[in-house]
Amino acid sequence: MQPVRLGLVGIGKIAVDQHLPAIAANAGFRLAATASRHGQVEGVDAYAHIADMIAVARLDAISLCTPPAGRHALALTAIEAGLHVMLEKPPAVTLSQVEALVGAARTAGVTLFATWHSREAAGVAPARAWLLDKRVEAVRIHWREDIRRWHPGQEWILGPGGFGVFDPGINALSIASEILPHQLVVESATMDVPQGRASPIAATLTMRCGLAEVRGEFDFLQTGPQDWSIEVDTDAGTLRLGMGGALLQLPGEAERPADDQEYPRLYERFANLIARREIDVDMRPLQLVADAFLIAERRVTDPFIF
Amino acid sequence: MQPVRLGLVGIGKIAVDQHLPAIAANAGFRLAATASRHGQVEGVDAYAHIADMIAVARLDAISLCTPPAGRHALALTAIEAGLHVMLEKPPAVTLSQVEALVGAARTAGVTLFATWHSREAAGVAPARAWLLDKRVEAVRIHWREDIRRWHPGQEWILGPGGFGVFDPGINALSIASEILPHQLVVESATMDVPQGRASPIAATLTMRCGLAEVRGEFDFLQTGPQDWSIEVDTDAGTLRLGMGGALLQLPGEAERPADDQEYPRLYERFANLIARREIDVDMRPLQLVADAFLIAERRVTDPFIF
Repeated sequence: MQPVRLGLVGIGKIAVDQHLPAIAANAGFRLAATASRHGQVEGVDAYAHIADMIAVARLDAISLCTPPAGRHALALTAIEAGLHVMLEKPPAVTLSQVEALVGAARTAGVTLFATWHSREAAGVAPARAWLLDKRVEAVRIHWREDIRRWHPGQEWILGPGGFGVFDPGINALSIASEILPHQLVVESATMDVPQGRASPIAATLTMRCGLAEVRGEFDFLQTGPQDWSIEVDTDAGTLRLGMGGALLQLPGEAERPADDQEYPRLYERFANLIARREIDVDMRPLQLVADAFLIAERRVTDPFIF
Repeated sequence: MQPVRLGLVGIGKIAVDQHLPAIAANAGFRLAATASRHGQVEGVDAYAHIADMIAVARLDAISLCTPPAGRHALALTAIEAGLHVMLEKPPAVTLSQVEALVGAARTAGVTLFATWHSREAAGVAPARAWLLDKRVEAVRIHWREDIRRWHPGQEWILGPGGFGVFDPGINALSIASEILPHQLVVESATMDVPQGRASPIAATLTMRCGLAEVRGEFDFLQTGPQDWSIEVDTDAGTLRLGMGGALLQLPGEAERPADDQEYPRLYERFANLIARREIDVDMRPLQLVADAFLIAERRVTDPFIF
């Protein structure tokens, strides 16, 4: 079978760190072109705009790693040109945009894959399997990172549709909604929004999962040790996922470290979805963030400067 | 057939103005009990709490017209007791709460009806029918009312989960999503939030419907003439819905005024749904509001005092 001729859109940090190595390692794809205002890849045809790339390069599929705000329009352009589309998380900045993309993909008969890379972290699938027959009693999510270290100069992240601390926090929600045996229901939220910004720099979220309380703490001002962990108290002890899902610790066992295979797995799955012309879009993580914004108590905090 | 023995929960303004007359006029229902902290209905068994009402009165169904924030818990209590449930709009304050209620109703095998009363306004069904074969070119939504006149002292409406001006504004979105021939997609929003409040007192919303721009203006500080109108420019002229959907004006025709039958129609539909044990929950209006909160640019405005 011929490899899928892929166009990569948005050559920034996540493209360079994750997408390019994963694409290079997957024989099912051939990187045929890039579209980006700033970045390019040596030896690959580079375009400034997605429309030019689609018109000139003969592509089968595109993968989008631009910032979330423009993703819907770019994805729609590609879908309407008959290309399969893979989306970085979050798939768009509103739920109605995601639904519109699903509708367009159905009409065009192409694959649409809304990725949640944290769900591919090494500990997630075994955590899900272990929790299946347990009674969940309480869940604590801690997602605390330093915005200046991981998102230097990314002003959009605190703007409208940037989701603020829920840009990383949605990764926690993508894991929690994957591993927990019952649906998550948002009950209340608080948000600290720096003066003059639209999106929160810190937040808490109180949810239910069956009868268990699920409490999330999200902080973008964490200096020192970074913390992306989920603890689940059950009738058989406490499960702990650390390092954004990479490290799993089950009660009475040692930590299970494992290689980071998140993006290679995403591209493997994209290839399989294309082969079957399937759509894989799970809106739950974005819905939980929307729910948080809908009911949050907000505090205005000091201005934030990167 | 025996009438459905109905318990009415939350005896406030909307119950007195709308629900009680509609129930009294429908032979399919018998008002068997009420649950309310403050109000009661002469000649009907009154309880302070829903759990007491459910335990003592032999009910088939309940109708909930309490403020939105507590609705999910009350509805869940009734569903788990095996009762059919009708919900005032919005059905709950988060999307995940609504989905949880749908799941519970399926499990219990009862009817769940999330009402959108404005969709039953006289002009809505004919507007939808007329628009089916038109090309929509632009849509203007104006939803401007005086919060002090229509919501006196309702502090919750500007609090977390009160939705602010989207408490009435969701009625406009329930109509627009019903009559327009394509899905609404939220692109941007602005919100004016009074200092110290969580929800907006004024907002704008920019959406797409196919290729047409849909522009909503929502204002809670409208004195003088009140305005709840939707104008739809099409290739066959402009359709105008006024008075919250009650008045329909088609191009070249006179206004069509009609009786207000919103709540009688809702109870008629509830009776039919119960007879067929069906669930009728459309989350689209709430999803559009969630999308607006998710991406809104916010301005803090002067404190608001009722």
